Amino acid sequence: RRIGMPEAVYCQSKTVQEILAILKHHRDTSNEAVLLTRCNNDVVGAVSKLYESMTHPLYVFPGLEIEADYRTIVVGTPTKIDAKVGVLTAGTSDLRVAHECMGTLFALGIHGEIYADVGVAHVDRVLEILPRLEDFDVIVVVAGMEGALASVVGGLVSQPVVAVPTSAGYGSSFDGLTALLAMTATCAQGVSVMGIDNGFGAACAAFRVVKRYTSRAKRL
Amino acid sequence: RRIGMPEAVYCQSKTVQEILAILKHHRDTSNEAVLLTRCNNDVVGAVSKLYESMTHPLYVFPGLEIEADYRTIVVGTPTKIDAKVGVLTAGTSDLRVAHECMGTLFALGIHGEIYADVGVAHVDRVLEILPRLEDFDVIVVVAGMEGALASVVGGLVSQPVVAVPTSAGYGSSFDGLTALLAMTATCAQGVSVMGIDNGFGAACAAFRVVKRYTSRAKRL
Amino acid sequence: RRIGMPEAVYCQSKTVQEILAILKHHRDTSNEAVLLTRCNNDVVGAVSKLYESMTHPLYVFPGLEIEADYRTIVVGTPTKIDAKVGVLTAGTSDLRVAHECMGTLFALGIHGEIYADVGVAHVDRVLEILPRLEDFDVIVVVAGMEGALASVVGGLVSQPVVAVPTSAGYGSSFDGLTALLAMTATCAQGVSVMGIDNGFGAACAAFRVVKRYTSRAKRL
Amino acid sequence: RRIGMPEAVYCQSKTVQEILAILKHHRDTSNEAVLLTRCNNDVVGAVSKLYESMTHPLYVFPGLEIEADYRTIVVGTPTKIDAKVGVLTAGTSDLRVAHECMGTLFALGIHGEIYADVGVAHVDRVLEILPRLEDFDVIVVVAGMEGALASVVGGLVSQPVVAVPTSAGYGSSFDGLTALLAMTATCAQGVSVMGIDNGFGAACAAFRVVKRYTSRAKRL
Amino acid sequence: RRIGMPEAVYCQSKTVQEILAILKHHRDTSNEAVLLTRCNNDVVGAVSKLYESMTHPLYVFPGLEIEADYRTIVVGTPTKIDAKVGVLTAGTSDLRVAHECMGTLFALGIHGEIYADVGVAHVDRVLEILPRLEDFDVIVVVAGMEGALASVVGGLVSQPVVAVPTSAGYGSSFDGLTALLAMTATCAQGVSVMGIDNGFGAACAAFRVVKRYTSRAKRL
Amino acid sequence: RRIGMPEAVYCQSKTVQEILAILKHHRDTSNEAVLLTRCNNDVVGAVSKLYESMTHPLYVFPGLEIEADYRTIVVGTPTKIDAKVGVLTAGTSDLRVAHECMGTLFALGIHGEIYADVGVAHVDRVLEILPRLEDFDVIVVVAGMEGALASVVGGLVSQPVVAVPTSAGYGSSFDGLTALLAMTATCAQGVSVMGIDNGFGAACAAFRVVKRYTSRAKRL
Amino acid sequence: RRIGMPEAVYCQSKTVQEILAILKHHRDTSNEAVLLTRCNNDVVGAVSKLYESMTHPLYVFPGLEIEADYRTIVVGTPTKIDAKVGVLTAGTSDLRVAHECMGTLFALGIHGEIYADVGVAHVDRVLEILPRLEDFDVIVVVAGMEGALASVVGGLVSQPVVAVPTSAGYGSSFDGLTALLAMTATCAQGVSVMGIDNGFGAACAAFRVVKRYTSRAKRL
Amino acid sequence: RRIGMPEAVYCQSKTVQEILAILKHHRDTSNEAVLLTRCNNDVVGAVSKLYESMTHPLYVFPGLEIEADYRTIVVGTPTKIDAKVGVLTAGTSDLRVAHECMGTLFALGIHGEIYADVGVAHVDRVLEILPRLEDFDVIVVVAGMEGALASVVGGLVSQPVVAVPTSAGYGSSFDGLTALLAMTATCAQGVSVMGIDNGFGAACAAFRVVKRYTSRAKRL
Ligand SMILES: Nc1ncnc2c1ncn2[C@@H]1O[C@H](COP(=O)(O)O)[C@@H](O)[C@H]1O
Ligand SMILES: Nc1ncnc2c1ncn2[C@@H]1O[C@H](COP(=O)(O)O)[C@@H](O)[C@H]1O
Ligand SMILES: Nc1ncnc2c1ncn2[C@@H]1O[C@H](COP(=O)(O)O)[C@@H](O)[C@H]1O
Ligand SMILES: Nc1ncnc2c1ncn2[C@@H]1O[C@H](COP(=O)(O)O)[C@@H](O)[C@H]1O
Ligand SMILES: [Mg+2]
Ligand SMILES: [Mg+2]
Ligand SMILES: [Mg+2]
Ligand SMILES: [Mg+2]
Ligand SMILES: [Mg+2]
Ligand SMILES: [Mg+2]
Ligand SMILES: [Mg+2]
Ligand SMILES: [Mg+2]
Repeated sequence: RRIGMPEAVYCQSKTVQEILAILKHHRDTSNEAVLLTRCNNDVVGAVSKLYESMTHPLYVFPGLEIEADYRTIVVGTPTKIDAKVGVLTAGTSDLRVAHECMGTLFALGIHGEIYADVGVAHVDRVLEILPRLEDFDVIVVVAGMEGALASVVGGLVSQPVVAVPTSAGYGSSFDGLTALLAMTATCAQGVSVMGIDNGFGAACAAFRVVKRYTSRAKRL
Repeated sequence: RRIGMPEAVYCQSKTVQEILAILKHHRDTSNEAVLLTRCNNDVVGAVSKLYESMTHPLYVFPGLEIEADYRTIVVGTPTKIDAKVGVLTAGTSDLRVAHECMGTLFALGIHGEIYADVGVAHVDRVLEILPRLEDFDVIVVVAGMEGALASVVGGLVSQPVVAVPTSAGYGSSFDGLTALLAMTATCAQGVSVMGIDNGFGAACAAFRVVKRYTSRAKRL
Repeated sequence: RRIGMPEAVYCQSKTVQEILAILKHHRDTSNEAVLLTRCNNDVVGAVSKLYESMTHPLYVFPGLEIEADYRTIVVGTPTKIDAKVGVLTAGTSDLRVAHECMGTLFALGIHGEIYADVGVAHVDRVLEILPRLEDFDVIVVVAGMEGALASVVGGLVSQPVVAVPTSAGYGSSFDGLTALLAMTATCAQGVSVMGIDNGFGAACAAFRVVKRYTSRAKRL
Repeated sequence: RRIGMPEAVYCQSKTVQEILAILKHHRDTSNEAVLLTRCNNDVVGAVSKLYESMTHPLYVFPGLEIEADYRTIVVGTPTKIDAKVGVLTAGTSDLRVAHECMGTLFALGIHGEIYADVGVAHVDRVLEILPRLEDFDVIVVVAGMEGALASVVGGLVSQPVVAVPTSAGYGSSFDGLTALLAMTATCAQGVSVMGIDNGFGAACAAFRVVKRYTSRAKRL
Repeated sequence: RRIGMPEAVYCQSKTVQEILAILKHHRDTSNEAVLLTRCNNDVVGAVSKLYESMTHPLYVFPGLEIEADYRTIVVGTPTKIDAKVGVLTAGTSDLRVAHECMGTLFALGIHGEIYADVGVAHVDRVLEILPRLEDFDVIVVVAGMEGALASVVGGLVSQPVVAVPTSAGYGSSFDGLTALLAMTATCAQGVSVMGIDNGFGAACAAFRVVKRYTSRAKRL
Repeated sequence: RRIGMPEAVYCQSKTVQEILAILKHHRDTSNEAVLLTRCNNDVVGAVSKLYESMTHPLYVFPGLEIEADYRTIVVGTPTKIDAKVGVLTAGTSDLRVAHECMGTLFALGIHGEIYADVGVAHVDRVLEILPRLEDFDVIVVVAGMEGALASVVGGLVSQPVVAVPTSAGYGSSFDGLTALLAMTATCAQGVSVMGIDNGFGAACAAFRVVKRYTSRAKRL
Repeated sequence: RRIGMPEAVYCQSKTVQEILAILKHHRDTSNEAVLLTRCNNDVVGAVSKLYESMTHPLYVFPGLEIEADYRTIVVGTPTKIDAKVGVLTAGTSDLRVAHECMGTLFALGIHGEIYADVGVAHVDRVLEILPRLEDFDVIVVVAGMEGALASVVGGLVSQPVVAVPTSAGYGSSFDGLTALLAMTATCAQGVSVMGIDNGFGAACAAFRVVKRYTSRAKRL
Repeated sequence: RRIGMPEAVYCQSKTVQEILAILKHHRDTSNEAVLLTRCNNDVVGAVSKLYESMTHPLYVFPGLEIEADYRTIVVGTPTKIDAKVGVLTAGTSDLRVAHECMGTLFALGIHGEIYADVGVAHVDRVLEILPRLEDFDVIVVVAGMEGALASVVGGLVSQPVVAVPTSAGYGSSFDGLTALLAMTATCAQGVSVMGIDNGFGAACAAFRVVKRYTSRAKRL
């Protein structure tokens, strides 16, 4: 894996049997952490059971207590990187994508923090959290509907901003197409965009940035 | 004209001869003001010449000195209404639509004011002008690209907000489609939207609102 | 909440637990009415039960007896405003969006009236109700398919007209896209448009208009 | 030509030379009338010159005096059919498509009549002309923007209604796509639709209808 | 009902209770036949039961024995018209739309005949049935996928051709959009198009044509 | 060039200077033929002049006498392959794409033959030429508007059929999108599709097929 | 069946009864193999049972042990052709389309081989299998999301390449539209494209190619 | 300018007079460099003349000798940053966007290098330059048509990859929409996307990344 990212399994279109087979094969051949995205309850249950009797740690996002069919599992403990990523969401329906991003950041060894429901219809919320954003190396903006949060945040911070359009919403949101077009048409300078609902990809984009920091720092 | 709006001539797809004929016919049959939208230089020249030797006043937006193919002419002096409308634009390329709106407001007897280039990539500009917006009975937001200004303004003011998507921009703006979709998907409550580049329509929407104020006030 | 609209909870993508938590928190911190939109039977049941033993009034639109997954609940009694809004629908399938609008108007203290099934394929129906429309401060037109009702009404009345495209229909209605495009391309002057199925937003747009009436009236 | 329609030459993408060659060949091999659509000034000039010295009659729509790049020429005198078609347009910009339809009707031997600028933003105009529409065997409705005229007319008359969406307009009309979708989603019963700007096709559709009348009448 | 078509109830988005209420009201106020489209099994069952003990005849298309959620019911016996309509389908999946058309034709008193599965991938099938098509006053072509049957039939017959795009198929058929665009772009002269899956509308379009025949014939 | 196709220069977005530079460089480094597509008159003139004084043969499609901005030039004499390709067009406006295909076939050493204007609105034209199609190893179908010719031909011949949608036409053809969607939704078995207007690509697809014949034949 | 392909039944929109009826009719009238595509478990069960007591062989793809609603059945033993087709998939979710292609190839007598999960995000995987691709007469590339595998393979091999876009994926894949557009816009020379998810069609396209080989070979 | 990027003027929709006015105002109020993008020859001429007699340096991309209407001008000398960005283009038509990116990088003080025409139809070209890519802190991939280069590069390098879809190409490229959708659907992990033709934005995105490096490095 030349580009240095851990094994990731996209579980949405796989059966529990297929997923367990992949995990068993991984266990036999590698010591690295594994990331499983888009896990429903059955997958979470089966994977938890597989590792129950083992010493391998298991992390589930957004937490075991919540029922959801869009969770992220990390098997094994990732090596930490000295980097922080802020994940902002416009509404509460964008949270499942934000949590996929958080789970992936964890698998990549990056510290992530969520700031939820700071959509631009109440622009003071963004302004309030602005000072706290300075700490982050990368800022991920997750938003559905018209996705305007990406433009506002992009104009307020100087770090890399990665925007993730979501399929949240109804009607004129057209399953994320509206937010996708709006975000790629943003008038904020240098905001780049991931595919619809691709919280995983946003975390990987952040990883590329912070990994380069590290390798540059080493050169010093 | 049951709904009380003055005669309006859309000049884009008409020849100079056709337009002059309409104006001459109007002069013979009515005392009301006439509005001509989307006039190019030829139209402005010919109409100016027609009224040169007459006592009828003639107003051209955005002013005679500028060369543009998207100007608005008002022939005759409209009756003033006690109402003010603020017209905000996200970028300078949205100005031609804002000027069409201003010209139409003038023809409808409404005082209009433009606040240009207050796009959300620099959200402080909107915040700065906020106090001055309180005076307006209706606020028109003209924006192309991702059209995020409508969402931000809609969350900051309590008056009616009419959003006009524009075809300004390139690439991902898709001739205004992106802004149109984004504005109709806005998460700001109660922002309503006009067709792409329809500055004329936004002024008419404002006119509907302020006319109702007047008729209600009369009832008191 | 600078813009003066009451708390509104969009329930479609929330669990019953989340909704009850929001309501309990609201009860402890505010005296204002709360609006819940897009409630299914479970939500209606749980919310009714929560308030059963309390003195707080509870209103459900379009009435408790009907089974539907698209209902609006208002908790508490809103302060009335001296304003009337007419809500016209083209077909019977547009009613659920019209009812969302009615429920929201109620929550905003505005008197609403529905005129259903007056679609333009039988233009006499619109002409018949025309005299009754004069009373309304704002007219909301809810229509799916080709959405032509907005154009016809816009040409017949002088008040503000807010058009709501709906996803009702099949085939060429493309989940509301056809009505959305058609309404924003209307040749009726000054008709403005909400997002697809956004009956809530139409009520808020009307609220913006009538609130401005009140504040203007006060200035007199 | 099994289906009984005269030779038609679509001139938009052909050179003057190609068109003259087709006409000369036709002259040598047939006595029937020929129809040339989408002719610009050069084509009109060259074809007029070709027939100048001949006894063949030549008809140009919408008349030789007007400069336009969208005219229809009929060479030869078509055999008249006992049938009348009404052609309604919503706006003045739809006229060029209506004239293509008129020219084609003439070539097919059918009497056509235009009723221009009766768009639904002023629904009384349609209601006014309603009595005169009873005479027509087929009614063609030509409209751009939101194309609502087709729905209104379809609900008012009992004859076959053929709707032609046009690319007239700007912005939200999306070069006729909006009108095309809206017309095929019409809630008026049994209104059928042609391709965008296809005035030629609408006349042919009318021809199919009236030809069948004739052949049925013969059977009596 | 100025345009002379019988009462039609679109049942897809209505509850059984609502439908029975409409029928009872109709029974008390009219002697005419009623048409119910898009009926599922529950609707067919309930309506059959309602009329069981009555002398009113009841017709169900495509026949009571088949389980389908897209059936047409006619209550009462329509007055026959001297007219025949041929309904061609490209594939077997287009049959449900063809049957809706057949049921509606029946309700309108017109004799309809289906020719199924004559799609252009086997053009000999169309050529084979060609002689039998001459009898029909109108030909309805029902096709999904690329909808090419409309073009081929349009070039082979001289009668009015009404094309109905269907949402049958998968992938590149995009729920009927492909067939809709293709049919309106047909190079066959004078073929007109209905909305996607609108078999009801195609029958109404045919009714408009044949009704005009009758009224013309009377004038003779 | 591992895949064995000759050098091809797409000239549409290149200046004459850039094209001449490429040709000079090629002349110095290779003996193979070069193909230039989408050449306007200036390019044809300049390239002709460059080779005037040389012994290198020069071929221009569709012939030097015709003025067109979409011509194909072949410099050098390609090695012939024992293969024949038939190129069918639906209308005369599709010819420029067909000629691009013919020029490219020539550059690839393949014998091509055009059958123009055999569109399905007159299906007998296709049936007439059917016997002559048997000779061809591959059949290319070039069609705009609704592109139905591909489906008909695909059902009549057993050879590989490559369909090329064109941007010819107006209105509902949407610059080739309609034909592209229709062709990929064809119900004819095993017809494959190139990009819009890509006559060059269709020739290359044919080349891949016939080259494989040759290499297989060698194995025998 | 002039074009020489075996009977194929598309089972997705047919009932088990309809399918059994087709098979029984086929058994009585023909000796050829039959292909059934898009079979769910019920269909597989019923067809298996029908042939249980018979001597007719029955093949199910991708194997009886797997539960899937997208399987291919071949009844009877097809005559083998001397040809090989390689079927590459970008991801594991593309496998169901690849298996449809494999089943169809089998029914056509062609040997097929799958190379799964060689998507371009890891371009070495494609490079690794490159030598093994030389054996194949046709290469089918099955890919969803952005479909880039078609471009890479098209640039590496000289055989005919048939690309099949799939609806696999989520968000920006837009049910296969993205891959469809991308594949038809490929910059690899001569790659042709099937409809979305049309694995059946890709096999038929390959069959057309290899059948022509055979008939050419015979001529030698 | 809180986010630290220099003044940038988008010149496409501005007159020469407007641009000169902006520059003169800037000269009087600031010492920083100014960036002008999308300059045509007139703008380049006028701006060169303005600075001719001054000591201010002036840089034009892609060089003064070339005639193009899409050039970038930098006035003043930017402060260098210790960072390198590689800009890859798929084809030669993508160069104008790549040059906009290069000009912007220069204005931001970043060293940029172009690798042109390395599109995936010849994947060896990308593989060849791979070792040289390691030096870059960020890699920008500029590609039109199907945009597959972004996926391939994203799978080969570990740095941040910013993809820019271009409107280069014709037909199925749909003015960049195809590349935009394809790039946001990429299966390469963590590749982020800019708007169509937004070479400026890609440079800004790179600037955000490298600026963060610097501020992090300072913290050490
Ligand atoms: N949530 C996700 N969104 C997008 N891509 C993902 C996601 N999770 C995993 N992937 C990608 O999918 C690949 C595995 O897909 P597959 O080969 O189909 O199992 C991983 O290597 C990742 O690149
Ligand atoms: N700039 C404009 N945008 C949209 N509609 C306009 C504009 N100017 C005028 N109109 C409308 O077009 C009508 C005149 O159209 P016409 O009869 O074609 O001149 C007016 O009554 C207005 O309703
Ligand atoms: N204005 C028009 N719009 C649509 N189709 C037309 C038009 N004029 C002619 N046609 C059709 O185009 C055919 C001639 O095309 P062509 O052979 O290219 O000249 C005629 O037979 C008609 O079917
Ligand atoms: N299957 C159908 N497709 C399209 N329109 C229909 C259909 N069935 C009924 N209609 C129309 O819908 C109207 C009844 O709508 P509703 O009032 O909602 O029952 C009828 O008058 C018809 O115009
Ligand atoms: Mg919120
Ligand atoms: Mg600005
Ligand atoms: Mg109704
Ligand atoms: Mg008008
Ligand atoms: Mg069939
Ligand atoms: Mg022709
Ligand atoms: Mg994979
Ligand atoms: Mg190249």
